[in-house]
Amino acid sequence: MSGSLHAAQALLPGGWAAEVRLRWDAAGRLTEVRPGVAADPADERAPGPLLPGIANLHAHAFQRLLAGLTEYRADEGGDDSFWSWRALMYRHAARIDPAALEAIATWLYVEMLEAGYTTVCEFHYLHNAPDGRPYADDGAMARALLRAARRAGIAITLLPVLYQQGGFGARPTGPGQARFLRGTAALLRLFESLRAEAAAQGARCGIAPHSLRAVGPAALREVLAGVAAIDAHAPIHIHIAEQRAEVEDCRAWSGQRPLAWLLDHAEVDARWCLVHATHLDADEIRRGAASGAVAGLCPTTEANLGDGLFDLPAWSAAGGRWGIGSDSQVTVDAAQELLWLEYGQRLASGRRNVAATTQQPQVAAHLVQQAVAGGAQASGRAAAGIAVGQQADLVALDAGHPALAGLAPDAMLASHLFASSRRSALAEVRVGGRRLVHGGRHALHDAAAAAFIACRRRLLAAA
Amino acid sequence: MSGSLHAAQALLPGGWAAEVRLRWDAAGRLTEVRPGVAADPADERAPGPLLPGIANLHAHAFQRLLAGLTEYRADEGGDDSFWSWRALMYRHAARIDPAALEAIATWLYVEMLEAGYTTVCEFHYLHNAPDGRPYADDGAMARALLRAARRAGIAITLLPVLYQQGGFGARPTGPGQARFLRGTAALLRLFESLRAEAAAQGARCGIAPHSLRAVGPAALREVLAGVAAIDAHAPIHIHIAEQRAEVEDCRAWSGQRPLAWLLDHAEVDARWCLVHATHLDADEIRRGAASGAVAGLCPTTEANLGDGLFDLPAWSAAGGRWGIGSDSQVTVDAAQELLWLEYGQRLASGRRNVAATTQQPQVAAHLVQQAVAGGAQASGRAAAGIAVGQQADLVALDAGHPALAGLAPDAMLASHLFASSRRSALAEVRVGGRRLVHGGRHALHDAAAAAFIACRRRLLAAA
Repeated sequence: MSGSLHAAQALLPGGWAAEVRLRWDAAGRLTEVRPGVAADPADERAPGPLLPGIANLHAHAFQRLLAGLTEYRADEGGDDSFWSWRALMYRHAARIDPAALEAIATWLYVEMLEAGYTTVCEFHYLHNAPDGRPYADDGAMARALLRAARRAGIAITLLPVLYQQGGFGARPTGPGQARFLRGTAALLRLFESLRAEAAAQGARCGIAPHSLRAVGPAALREVLAGVAAIDAHAPIHIHIAEQRAEVEDCRAWSGQRPLAWLLDHAEVDARWCLVHATHLDADEIRRGAASGAVAGLCPTTEANLGDGLFDLPAWSAAGGRWGIGSDSQVTVDAAQELLWLEYGQRLASGRRNVAATTQQPQVAAHLVQQAVAGGAQASGRAAAGIAVGQQADLVALDAGHPALAGLAPDAMLASHLFASSRRSALAEVRVGGRRLVHGGRHALHDAAAAAFIACRRRLLAAA
Repeated sequence: MSGSLHAAQALLPGGWAAEVRLRWDAAGRLTEVRPGVAADPADERAPGPLLPGIANLHAHAFQRLLAGLTEYRADEGGDDSFWSWRALMYRHAARIDPAALEAIATWLYVEMLEAGYTTVCEFHYLHNAPDGRPYADDGAMARALLRAARRAGIAITLLPVLYQQGGFGARPTGPGQARFLRGTAALLRLFESLRAEAAAQGARCGIAPHSLRAVGPAALREVLAGVAAIDAHAPIHIHIAEQRAEVEDCRAWSGQRPLAWLLDHAEVDARWCLVHATHLDADEIRRGAASGAVAGLCPTTEANLGDGLFDLPAWSAAGGRWGIGSDSQVTVDAAQELLWLEYGQRLASGRRNVAATTQQPQVAAHLVQQAVAGGAQASGRAAAGIAVGQQADLVALDAGHPALAGLAPDAMLASHLFASSRRSALAEVRVGGRRLVHGGRHALHDAAAAAFIACRRRLLAAA
């Protein structure tokens, strides 16, 4: 539905503008962005500074079930790491069927919208039934995600995952991985069938070779060629260099680090999202940044799992693009991801305002603009900020929030990111102009939470 | 007022207990903690798992004014650090008078209570008028803090600060430091006069030599002797080894690192709180832990200022005690401090659940218990957990919160710390049995926020 909105302050691609009037068409695309004009009586009014919505470029919806359930030392020897977490994650994953996935994802997407994400990229690998056999409809789980996104109103880029081996050099998969497996031809068929269904709700499809651990060279070539033949612009996402052990295993297998290997064996370009990219050497940073790919940073998950810190200054200096994702869903909050990204850099460097630049000394505005641009590119959606031709994916802050009231817009945004603690200052969130969050709450909040709680209770009781 | 409360689950010093009945006397002290009994009809009922309140062991209330206002690159050369932040902090501090401090602190203490802190330790150095001269009542600023604590209902340990020099080796102070200066005899007189006033509201007083930068050896000896003569148990807090440059300056001055120097020149014992203690060598860790002092960790401020990471595993292995503080107030949330403490360790080590132990594999419960014990010791208050003889400083989680509902108490607590994102799961907070926060909100929330906003607006307009 077309509409119009007036904001006293809005963060446009060129910076803050005052008295901004927006109009969008029935498809939710902005047709007018005009600063310096009074509101029309028919305009809705933004309750505070208006920001572009951010795409969450990396999510595994089902992992919302695990959040808070893995924060204990499972191994008496104290050898707790990403890898012991993964074993717990497999165990929880085993119990989720399409109905459960829909309940979990619907609540998660409501949470995402309330937290300022207007698009979600689903890196979806829970394909098969718990016994490892495909469902009669082999897209049953993927379709549950599309339904959840439709109900919550979030824009989605669905990325069915290719997962074929248990480690570098075609190691066999373990029992926990049986739900993830797909032949390359079957995955391409799934991609094609989901594309049509996704298009009907304005969604996008891409593909995701899980990692170089899980996809061998021949399958990688085959799936990339297959996808390009169907959609030359389809987003391509891959987990890369998240853990040091993964880097070592890749070197043992190929003699190269993961990103170096990938850059030598695939045409990595602006379609690509390099998820995590935590452990890169200087050459990988230079070449990765130059490829035009987006680094998919997931700072709260990477902290929770002890992955390590991405070298943002080096990546940025090389011209690299990046965006943010909630990954394991232990934190679902765009502002917190940006806070963690910046604070990690401060801890590593002993300096402040690391992500700021001479052109944009305001670190919060810089972080938001970069995450919006990178997220739009990685999702393959026209959601790259408040500009004509882009989706009207909009977030309005609450100008009356105690951490924000009376401040200039840059300070309001900085307070939203850095100084609002547990009380989010997000007031309204729109996707394609449609207001989904009002007064900080999504209309489905209570119903979706209740369904999620009932689902979790059932799944944990069966554990 | 005496009272009683029944909780389905409560975290006692020995771990979780079910069906716990608490009673407290008119002084707010617990007189009964009885697990395994049904509620009496007269008991209030906790809305979820009951936790001990945490003392915030390091706060500069006035810095709440700055939160969100320093997140930009002030220096075009990009040389932004703790030291450039300090220059901004001095500028803001210059405008605060007693009425402004009371408005800022009242709101801050409301926020602290809503965030699970039941005691605040005020490291108070803003003594003089903006022109550097003492107020007619030279405790005018300190008394504003006591009034703010009384209005909000938070327990307070007030620590007037000794600040006499601009750097190691008696470097002269700069103009930004004129409000902090105090002669040693004058500080001891202030300490004595505040003690009586504090006792009337159940508050505690201690003293704080600001740092080895700001207090020379003779003054340190003198103030420690003077305080001990008045109150042999008074808490003693000091900033130590926060920044690498401070460590280097101390070595240049004395040939020793700051904590090593302090341990050689003062009787550091259980009265002491070593604030930050970020940069310690192995010998300082061993000796500091053995002293019985509490390490005063402020993880969100230490990240915001790029201070660095405390070595929690080494300190804990040496038997060291610790607690948490909100320091610069950029984040006011006990759970987030604990999250940051743990996540920092995970990033440094590449492992998970770093703070957990063989005896207490649940990392969230372990973090809360340690912070409660360390905070109680550093504040000099009987608030060391839910046990007879301790203050009834209690926090109840919301068992119906979507991140918690239906989980076992350990998982609820872990979800509260790690997986509740922007929606705090704190439902009720009591100090000395008195319920101050209900449904997540303090009764003064709106009025205190409005006064804070008006005060900030006035101060920034005068800038």
